Amino acid sequence: MSMLRDKVRLQIPGPTPIPPRIQQAMLRPMVGHRDPEASKLVAACSQRLAPLFGTASPVLIMAASGTAALEAAVINSVQPGGSAAVVVTGAFGDRFAKILGKHGIETHRLDIPWGQACTPEALANFLKEKPQVEAVFLTFCETSTGVLNPIDRLASVVREHTDALVIADGVSAVGGVPAHADEWGVDILVTGSQKALMLPAGLAFASVSSQAWERIEANARPRFYLDFLPYRESLEKNTTPYTPAVSLLFGLEAALDMLEEEGLENVYTRHQWMMRMTRAGIRGMGLALLATDTDASPTVTAVKGDDGTAEAIRKQMKALNIRLAGGQQQLKGEIFRIGHMGYSDPLDIVTTIAALEVAAIRAGLPVQPGSGIQATEEEWIHASRVDHRPAQ
Amino acid sequence: MSMLRDKVRLQIPGPTPIPPRIQQAMLRPMVGHRDPEASKLVAACSQRLAPLFGTASPVLIMAASGTAALEAAVINSVQPGGSAAVVVTGAFGDRFAKILGKHGIETHRLDIPWGQACTPEALANFLKEKPQVEAVFLTFCETSTGVLNPIDRLASVVREHTDALVIADGVSAVGGVPAHADEWGVDILVTGSQKALMLPAGLAFASVSSQAWERIEANARPRFYLDFLPYRESLEKNTTPYTPAVSLLFGLEAALDMLEEEGLENVYTRHQWMMRMTRAGIRGMGLALLATDTDASPTVTAVKGDDGTAEAIRKQMKALNIRLAGGQQQLKGEIFRIGHMGYSDPLDIVTTIAALEVAAIRAGLPVQPGSGIQATEEEWIHASRVDHRPAQ
Repeated sequence: MSMLRDKVRLQIPGPTPIPPRIQQAMLRPMVGHRDPEASKLVAACSQRLAPLFGTASPVLIMAASGTAALEAAVINSVQPGGSAAVVVTGAFGDRFAKILGKHGIETHRLDIPWGQACTPEALANFLKEKPQVEAVFLTFCETSTGVLNPIDRLASVVREHTDALVIADGVSAVGGVPAHADEWGVDILVTGSQKALMLPAGLAFASVSSQAWERIEANARPRFYLDFLPYRESLEKNTTPYTPAVSLLFGLEAALDMLEEEGLENVYTRHQWMMRMTRAGIRGMGLALLATDTDASPTVTAVKGDDGTAEAIRKQMKALNIRLAGGQQQLKGEIFRIGHMGYSDPLDIVTTIAALEVAAIRAGLPVQPGSGIQATEEEWIHASRVDHRPAQ
Repeated sequence: MSMLRDKVRLQIPGPTPIPPRIQQAMLRPMVGHRDPEASKLVAACSQRLAPLFGTASPVLIMAASGTAALEAAVINSVQPGGSAAVVVTGAFGDRFAKILGKHGIETHRLDIPWGQACTPEALANFLKEKPQVEAVFLTFCETSTGVLNPIDRLASVVREHTDALVIADGVSAVGGVPAHADEWGVDILVTGSQKALMLPAGLAFASVSSQAWERIEANARPRFYLDFLPYRESLEKNTTPYTPAVSLLFGLEAALDMLEEEGLENVYTRHQWMMRMTRAGIRGMGLALLATDTDASPTVTAVKGDDGTAEAIRKQMKALNIRLAGGQQQLKGEIFRIGHMGYSDPLDIVTTIAALEVAAIRAGLPVQPGSGIQATEEEWIHASRVDHRPAQ
């Protein structure tokens, strides 16, 4: 049967679909980036982002993608000659390690099997002998495995054993999962625009604690564009040190409007239910999940299929107009990943699970039509009864 | 659970969702309507619409909604003092009758129970005693009931019994259902832009046979904006007699690109399968269809629920972010209608049926989650195996 080729449903874990309201906002006539209107925009966005990070400080905004924010976190926090620890639970923990390596920073690496979260106990054991590290790098949601690390408890463990800064990659978490950087003692929390914030890629964000600012001020490591200091200084004058990506800021303003109108608690609850509906559907059709219920992220779900079925299903899904992500690095060909964050709702999950049943059957798997969707719908009905159930 | 309030799925039988490609086309910078670029646009659209109507003649384009095209068909075809017959299978056949009445035209009305198609036999019996009528007005797809009338055979019956022009309302049919106006002997076939053509409302279209042109030329009935003659005259000079709706023409050009790229046969097959998937799902969950399989339209499906369930389900669907239509006139509160035409694909049907299960349960009906979707998916799997099955 012929299909509407351009009616593609983006269920990958970023970039996520852009709401029409944000698309329209980004079409606003351009303004000069030193115009008072641009300054108002920068100041307002920075302040309105703070609740998403759980910080009382304004959030830094950079024209860059998420990886730049990871690198900025590294080069601002670790002195020349200093060492760092990094917890690797997947490809994005590994990216932190790669950045540390490129900058010649002595790196202590804690590798956790991919698909599992790092436990506070594992981190405590690891850090016992490494009290000299200047920073510990964590991944909040490990996008490559669909695992949500318990950042609050890991941050406590770091505080207990070291004087290190706690630095977390919040990409694919911030905006979809509650974050409380100040309360948890996360010194630097970074994210990008193309995940739960519903924007195209091109903006990177960072919250920075007062303890971190002290270290950053004293840090002699050479850096320019990714130096946090001029961003803080410019923000005090309601601007950015270098040209901001103004149309993305127009979009960010609309995204913040949408998040505030829905209410952050409701946004997080919606993500929780999308995760539950997805997991129920996958189990219902007899497929296996990579992460346990305890470790699962509300924003992305990884499904096992290391006998070639993961890629076969993903290919069939593409033919049905739904894009899913494959595995990365050591998980390449072994899993597929469903993104369910940002401008995504229960109907998208229902669509994805129903299509997965058809895709699995077309890929030759013994899946019964309706087997997954039944479980997904039951979770949905349950969700609508519980209604404003508090997010995890 | 909180919802994305603006992520509304429009499954009403028009207006239908606008593809992003068409939205973008309509944002093109405005051109003067007597500019050569506008003339090229008018000429190309008129010619490229012809295959959708099944005519060798260029199609007239008016800046107006579908009802204007119905009225134009009436006042261009029936002489002052002349009489007409109208077959009423629902609210839109009734609209033809109302227009005829407003113009004081003696009208012979054949009423068919709503939810059924008019049979050739019924029309033959009706016309036997009315050979003096100048025009017979038919409805191709009766949007209010989801019934597709057998226009080809009804047109033959008219030819057999009268010298009347055959005039058909093609709104919610043309572009989603094969039409062969020349071959079938349909003298005037009209439609609007906001249905299977994937555009906003605002354009009306008409194909006119040479026999009809003779009558129109001889017709003394007073008319100006809706007179077909100046449209034909202007079209010979690649323009329109009055200001055309240029941004809608930009959109129409993109819509024709999309329809031609998919291939009209494929477009019609897609609509056939969406109808089958919808009907299978409705039956699977134990709800009752208004029209029989023989009478069902590939573009809209009406579902019974005269005990208050139709409106209860529709209300619940609205809460789930899917808009359905209710019943009109005598069917008000007795049915709900699902549109599946234009920029709509099998995934939309899957979404709609799954949501209908949840909506029905929330409305208190004894529906089993997965019961409808299983049948819908089986039809979909069947469709993807049969692939390019010829349309009806």
